[in-house]
Formats: sequence, C-alpha cells, structure tokens
Amino acid sequence: MPFDPLSPHYQRIREQIAYDIATGTPQADEKFPSEREMIERFGCTRVTLRQALQQLEAEGLVYRENRRGWFVSPRRIRYDPTRISGFMDYVSAQGRTPRTECLQAELRPAGAWLARRMSLSSEDEPVFFLQRRRWIDRRPVLLEFNALLASWCPGLLDADLNTSLTRVLRERFSRVQSRCELEMHIGTVNEDQAELLQLSPGSTSVYLERLNFGEEDQAVEFDQEFWRPDALSIVMETRYPGKT
Amino acid sequence: MPFDPLSPHYQRIREQIAYDIATGTPQADEKFPSEREMIERFGCTRVTLRQALQQLEAEGLVYRENRRGWFVSPRRIRYDPTRISGFMDYVSAQGRTPRTECLQAELRPAGAWLARRMSLSSEDEPVFFLQRRRWIDRRPVLLEFNALLASWCPGLLDADLNTSLTRVLRERFSRVQSRCELEMHIGTVNEDQAELLQLSPGSTSVYLERLNFGEEDQAVEFDQEFWRPDALSIVMETRYPGKT
Repeated sequence: MPFDPLSPHYQRIREQIAYDIATGTPQADEKFPSEREMIERFGCTRVTLRQALQQLEAEGLVYRENRRGWFVSPRRIRYDPTRISGFMDYVSAQGRTPRTECLQAELRPAGAWLARRMSLSSEDEPVFFLQRRRWIDRRPVLLEFNALLASWCPGLLDADLNTSLTRVLRERFSRVQSRCELEMHIGTVNEDQAELLQLSPGSTSVYLERLNFGEEDQAVEFDQEFWRPDALSIVMETRYPGKT
Repeated sequence: MPFDPLSPHYQRIREQIAYDIATGTPQADEKFPSEREMIERFGCTRVTLRQALQQLEAEGLVYRENRRGWFVSPRRIRYDPTRISGFMDYVSAQGRTPRTECLQAELRPAGAWLARRMSLSSEDEPVFFLQRRRWIDRRPVLLEFNALLASWCPGLLDADLNTSLTRVLRERFSRVQSRCELEMHIGTVNEDQAELLQLSPGSTSVYLERLNFGEEDQAVEFDQEFWRPDALSIVMETRYPGKT
C-alpha cells in the first residue's frame, strides 16, 4: 500500500501528543521519551511517528535538538516591530536569556541586487556583510543577515559583533536610525539555514526584511531575518486616526 | 527500505519545479501538468511528487484547487496592520478582486473564554459571532471569525455581511474603532479550515488575532484570522522617535 501523506494515523498520534503537552507531560523545554519508546507506545512505524512530530514542529509545539531528541517548545517571544528595542533588550525584558553569535563578518562591494534594493549610486559601494545567529535560552531561534554601508559606520568589523548591533552603532559610531520599512511573510529555510536553526530542511520560518534609514533619510542598512516558526509572536498596537 | 522524510529525491524535484516557476513556465495562476504527467517526467512515485509539491505549497510557490490540480501562486497581497484600511479596500487598491462570503452569523452569549479575553463583566453578554471566508480573485485566502458586542451594533445580523464589516459598522451604526491590539504568528489549519481554504490539513497559516476597542476605549470586537500562507505579506513603516 503506498504511503498516504493524508493518512489519519499520524493525525491521531499528533492529537495524543498535543493532548499530553496541553496537560503538562512533558513540560516546556522538557524532553519526550525516545523515538523508539514512542514507536512502541503508539504501535506505529518510525515514518508515521516522524510525520506526527514534524506536524507538531510546524505548529510550534515541539522542537528537536540535534542528537538529543524531541522537546516541548517554550513560550513564544513577543516582538513589537513598531518599537526600536533590539533583540538583546526585548528578550531579556521577557525574562529569557538572549545571546548573539557572529558567524561571519566581511567587507565587500554591494553588488547589483543590494545596490538596487538600497538605492545606492554604485554597485561597488563598500558594504559590511554580517551573518549572525541569535539564541534564546539554549535554543537558536534566529538567523540574521545585515548589510551596512561602510561609509556610515567605518571600522565596524573592529567592534565586538556578538552583541547588540543597535548598541554598537549608537555607542561607537553615534549612529541612530530614523525609520524602517519592514516586510514579513512565511518562508522556508534551506539546508544550511535548517542546520543552523536545528530545523528540518524545508521547514517554514518567519521571514522578515528591514530597510533602515539614517539621519538624512538615506538607506544605511538592509536586514534579512529567518526565525524559527515556533519562537516568535508579532504583537503591536495600532491607534486609528479618527477614521471617517 | 523505509520511507525517509529527509530524502533528497523530492528536494531535487522541488528544485526543478521551482526553477520552472522562476523561468515562467507555468506563469502565475496557470495550471501545472497533471500529477500523472509529472510522475512520468520525474520518474518518481506519487508520494515523492506530492512531497515536493507540498513543500512548494508551504513555501507559497504553488497552490492546489480542489479536483482541478496544481497552480502557480500569484503575488502576495500586501497588508499594513498599522492602517485602518479593510480587506475589500486594500485588495482592490492592489488591482485584485476581493470577495467576502459570510458562512455563518448568529447571536449567542459570549461564554467564559471570550468574556475574559474581552474583559466583559458577564459571560452571558450577547455577542454576534460571524464566520466569513474571503477571496482574492478566484482563490479563498482567508477565514475570519468575528465576535462583536451586540449592544455596540444591535441588528447587525440584518445587514449584508458579504461585504466590508468596517463599512457596515460605519454606515449603518456610525461606529468606528479607536485602536486595536494585534498578535500574529505561524499557526496551522485544522481539517475544516483546510477544506475551506483548499489546503492540506495541518498546513501552516498566518494566524492573526485582533482586539478592537470602541469610542470609550472598551473592547467591542475580537477577531481571529487564518490566512493561506502564500497569500499574505505584512508590510509597515516604523518611524523611530529620536532613539537615544
């Protein structure tokens, strides 16, 4: 019999595990029994169990740690894109432990695509490219790519980039941003990104793109973020100007 | 050999189809060849083809129409949650055709959960519950649940609800909302929701929740939205008040 991706069997297992989580066994950040034990308990194949777990992973209820097994997801971090507060600050403010890990930092010409995206006059404009991974407690939750105009913050690569970029720019370069254009949608992660975020390749992610403007309203930084789907909740308040 | 959900075979097929889309064959809203034809072309099983297509569906590159086959996704609608503009307006403004279909509308007591969420004084408070499905061009893209205080807009059920609720409230009840608290994250759809949105059960969706406040800053409406993952892009501009 061919494998049916819509088979109800893995859905029943998914429901049982979701019920266990809802009733607190295991609790947030606690480990599930091994796959072998769960296979025995549910009387299913490894394929079916994996389907149920990957479904729960997509829903943000469970996560996997390389070689350690499956865990219950902790609460989502709340991020308000209308505020200026940076990752290190809003994660701490929610009682969690943020960490930033700089994976790569280099100076290169902008290139055609980025020059167009940032409205630069030349694609040879020197730009700092950073790739950073950010953690909440013991989970990697976010991959961030930043491209910053070198002329706006020369010598950036000499600074410690395993921390808040907002703070480095402010304290070392006296730079602040005036506004930001933001776009976000559901995306997926490729194999490298999946590895870094401990997700399955092709998992969904929250994709967030920001174009930041400097003091003279010139584009100074372009960011791309890939968030674990279960790590983030976007919150904001909107006041309506007397709608008529 | 057991089926391996991480097998590279469906990834190769996914890449070939993504390449075809990028090079314009087929184009937006055009149909792919039948599954039978694609199985022949790729020399794969139906299972593997479905995995590749479901991966592309999660990425928002393809969508399925019940009984008609697979299609290339059109461009995402851009929605700015900081503006008051309603679905019917912002979809039209982007050159697309919006449609609202009221599936259910009834008057019931709020119940314990909603009373707490809206800070109502009694769980017996009468509330209009609406369930609506919204379309862009020929695709259903959004399921919306609205709960409105009956005392705020009495007689709502007599109005035509296959249209903009914002407009009905304004024109028929002279009601406008003053502000809104919004939360969104990646969620999934259950079987009924999947059916209504023509998705696979367990597909990811953009989940959006809104608590709307009235003229006296009292909670008057609570909304839940489930968006097709490929239909929506959130865009906004943020101005930073002189960050120091």
